[in-house]
Amino acid sequence: MNEKHVRVGLVGFGTVGTGVAKLIYEEGDAIAAKTGVRLELACVVDVDTQRPRPVPLPEGVLTSDLNRLIADPGIAIGIELVGGTGIAKDIQLQMLHAGKDVVTANKALLALHGGELYQVAHENGRCIAFEASCAGGIPIIGAIRSGLAANQITGMFGIVNGTCNYILSSMSTKDEAFGAALAKAQKRGYAEADPTLDISGGDSAHKLAILASIAFGGEIGLEDIFVQGLDGIAREDIRYGREMGYCLKLLAIAQRNAEGKISLRVHPSFIAADSWLARVDGSFNAISVFGNAVGETFYYGRGAGMMPTASAVVADLIDVALGNSRTLFESLRLKPREEVKPLLEKIDDCVSRFYVRVMAKDKPGVVARYGKILGDHAISISGVLQHEGDGPSNTVPVVITTHKTQEKNMREALAELTRTDVISGKPVCIRIVDIPQDKDT
Amino acid sequence: MNEKHVRVGLVGFGTVGTGVAKLIYEEGDAIAAKTGVRLELACVVDVDTQRPRPVPLPEGVLTSDLNRLIADPGIAIGIELVGGTGIAKDIQLQMLHAGKDVVTANKALLALHGGELYQVAHENGRCIAFEASCAGGIPIIGAIRSGLAANQITGMFGIVNGTCNYILSSMSTKDEAFGAALAKAQKRGYAEADPTLDISGGDSAHKLAILASIAFGGEIGLEDIFVQGLDGIAREDIRYGREMGYCLKLLAIAQRNAEGKISLRVHPSFIAADSWLARVDGSFNAISVFGNAVGETFYYGRGAGMMPTASAVVADLIDVALGNSRTLFESLRLKPREEVKPLLEKIDDCVSRFYVRVMAKDKPGVVARYGKILGDHAISISGVLQHEGDGPSNTVPVVITTHKTQEKNMREALAELTRTDVISGKPVCIRIVDIPQDKDT
Repeated sequence: MNEKHVRVGLVGFGTVGTGVAKLIYEEGDAIAAKTGVRLELACVVDVDTQRPRPVPLPEGVLTSDLNRLIADPGIAIGIELVGGTGIAKDIQLQMLHAGKDVVTANKALLALHGGELYQVAHENGRCIAFEASCAGGIPIIGAIRSGLAANQITGMFGIVNGTCNYILSSMSTKDEAFGAALAKAQKRGYAEADPTLDISGGDSAHKLAILASIAFGGEIGLEDIFVQGLDGIAREDIRYGREMGYCLKLLAIAQRNAEGKISLRVHPSFIAADSWLARVDGSFNAISVFGNAVGETFYYGRGAGMMPTASAVVADLIDVALGNSRTLFESLRLKPREEVKPLLEKIDDCVSRFYVRVMAKDKPGVVARYGKILGDHAISISGVLQHEGDGPSNTVPVVITTHKTQEKNMREALAELTRTDVISGKPVCIRIVDIPQDKDT
Repeated sequence: MNEKHVRVGLVGFGTVGTGVAKLIYEEGDAIAAKTGVRLELACVVDVDTQRPRPVPLPEGVLTSDLNRLIADPGIAIGIELVGGTGIAKDIQLQMLHAGKDVVTANKALLALHGGELYQVAHENGRCIAFEASCAGGIPIIGAIRSGLAANQITGMFGIVNGTCNYILSSMSTKDEAFGAALAKAQKRGYAEADPTLDISGGDSAHKLAILASIAFGGEIGLEDIFVQGLDGIAREDIRYGREMGYCLKLLAIAQRNAEGKISLRVHPSFIAADSWLARVDGSFNAISVFGNAVGETFYYGRGAGMMPTASAVVADLIDVALGNSRTLFESLRLKPREEVKPLLEKIDDCVSRFYVRVMAKDKPGVVARYGKILGDHAISISGVLQHEGDGPSNTVPVVITTHKTQEKNMREALAELTRTDVISGKPVCIRIVDIPQDKDT
């Protein structure tokens, strides 16, 4: 078997970029032996050429001049690891126009400008490979677009943000408050100094947009996704939920409803404590994917970090070098939205169960009134939890779980509850997500 | 995007074959829209053309004449779902010689004659795709050879036989005896009338040979794998193991040791009850794969059945049609063993921990003698479990778990134990497999 020698150029010599360089230098022989692809890191572009990195580059490889990469026709693949949606977009466009395939981990950019970038790639006969953009080291994009290609995807339920999962795990297993759990995550490197993009659910939405585009065909944008982050999550709700058999996770969900419409949403979700996703602890990622032929498949691994993400980037380099990424990219129906947009379900129409906690005032008839308001909005109660003397003075937390109902019914019921004089403050409402059961008969 | 029209021929119209036909007919449009590949089932070959199947074929598609497939140059891909290692091999060879790519789920054939078949495929510029051969609907082969291509695989631990896992799950959760659990599995269709190949570990070994070939490069045959099946597994050992924090699974293991040698084995294994694999119930399959860059990844899904296996077969058809399977097949170092054989560890040198149960006779000094014999063979004790009055008359079960030791030390210690007069019958010995921990720091 002849080795295929491929020169690649990297832009962005940060954590993941360093991991990519490390893999190419340290594992290059093993990769060549196994795949027939010999990767050569022709240049590494970064604004900072002075700071020492844990992986030394040979003399002359590191440069601040992007043009050395763009103008070199011998560089077949450009790796964009700058991140963000500004200069990174320009870098990818330059790479594509210069006839290079692109490998990237940039979920924000693809979620925001994927359609435009894919179009430019198609026009230039190039491809963009982005396995590293979702769920780090888990080869989930390959699984969905190749492994499950014969399936109609009926549902995807993912923990795709390690920061949020780390925080929720800490709150859940150690009964920590949100702020303390976040501070710990930051101290240990599992959360950024500014964690807004993670905590808000925005990062999960980026990944969901990419995964859903792959799974359902057609361009899916951030505006198609309902997003709610971890704001306002209180440890007592995690505790009450656990008493009722649930575990709280921030899920990215793409689900086909009975009419064939796709529901796309990111929000805190109570899931059955014995489901696969409930067992995902700390900063790890995992995704349950349901196909109409295959049933449930589940994928778990590290969602971020130097080497796991680099593993995905280098896997893409190999796939691009072998020509497979281009074939898949060409065959993927990632066309502008107006052409092949899947029908989407509005969040108001989304049917689910709910966990609702109110701080009931300590007077007669409160629970009856609470129940009546829900009943008036066609919401039936599935379970009730009320501990004696658990609340602050003169109030008691009353938790109700509901049977399935449309989101808009619940929204109206909550508004009415808030207006009554029998509860203190605003009700807390968390969606209960019943992940389909796929078990032996 | 132009559709690529691909004619395929299927040999073997049993359960999986019927599922493949169903997917091609019912999902053909969706597959073409999503992947650009339009599959046409040109002919279905089976010795039985009379028996009605749940999926009706158009007039003239079903035939008993293999030559209709072989001699038709318009058929690009042959699907072999006959099974077994006899006629199936001849069919695959005919397909390859006739210039067709081959898609198969036949693990026994690939494990036994893979080297020869791959060679013929290479000589004819064709490929063999076999995602369906291992773990049914789980796209594990794609994950290992593409998704984790940048990694050196350091370990794989798989539950790849649904029959055995169903039986062990029943024994474990319902305290059933082996025979009762097997009978139930047969009644519900999770075990064959003759379950020998499954129960013996042979089927798991077939799959391990294929997965290890992909993971480590080089041809790995059945003779390279130590195999022990479920014979003699008693429910009380499952129960005692559980008390000590372990769950019993039949694992297929490929593990790189400190010297770089690969240990390949299939055997009943006590694993930590909180590990991912311990949570796999019933007929499902799952595999933990460790890479030096990615850490732990875990894959779960249905390991058999009409539609999950058909899902993998059709995914391969699409991959072959797109040309990707051939690229990967060519780049895979599946060469004859003498060229690129990985160094293998002998089972005698394998280091692990052990669970040992003896029926100790009820007389003084027995435990001391038991412990001394282990100590004499450089085996240290990690845990002891002895319930009062738990055994038949005049004996008591004494369970010892050990620290790590070489297999040959344990074999010799067991032989010496058996020769003593302080135990009744033969000691029971089950390996404890410490699956590496990959957790947040």
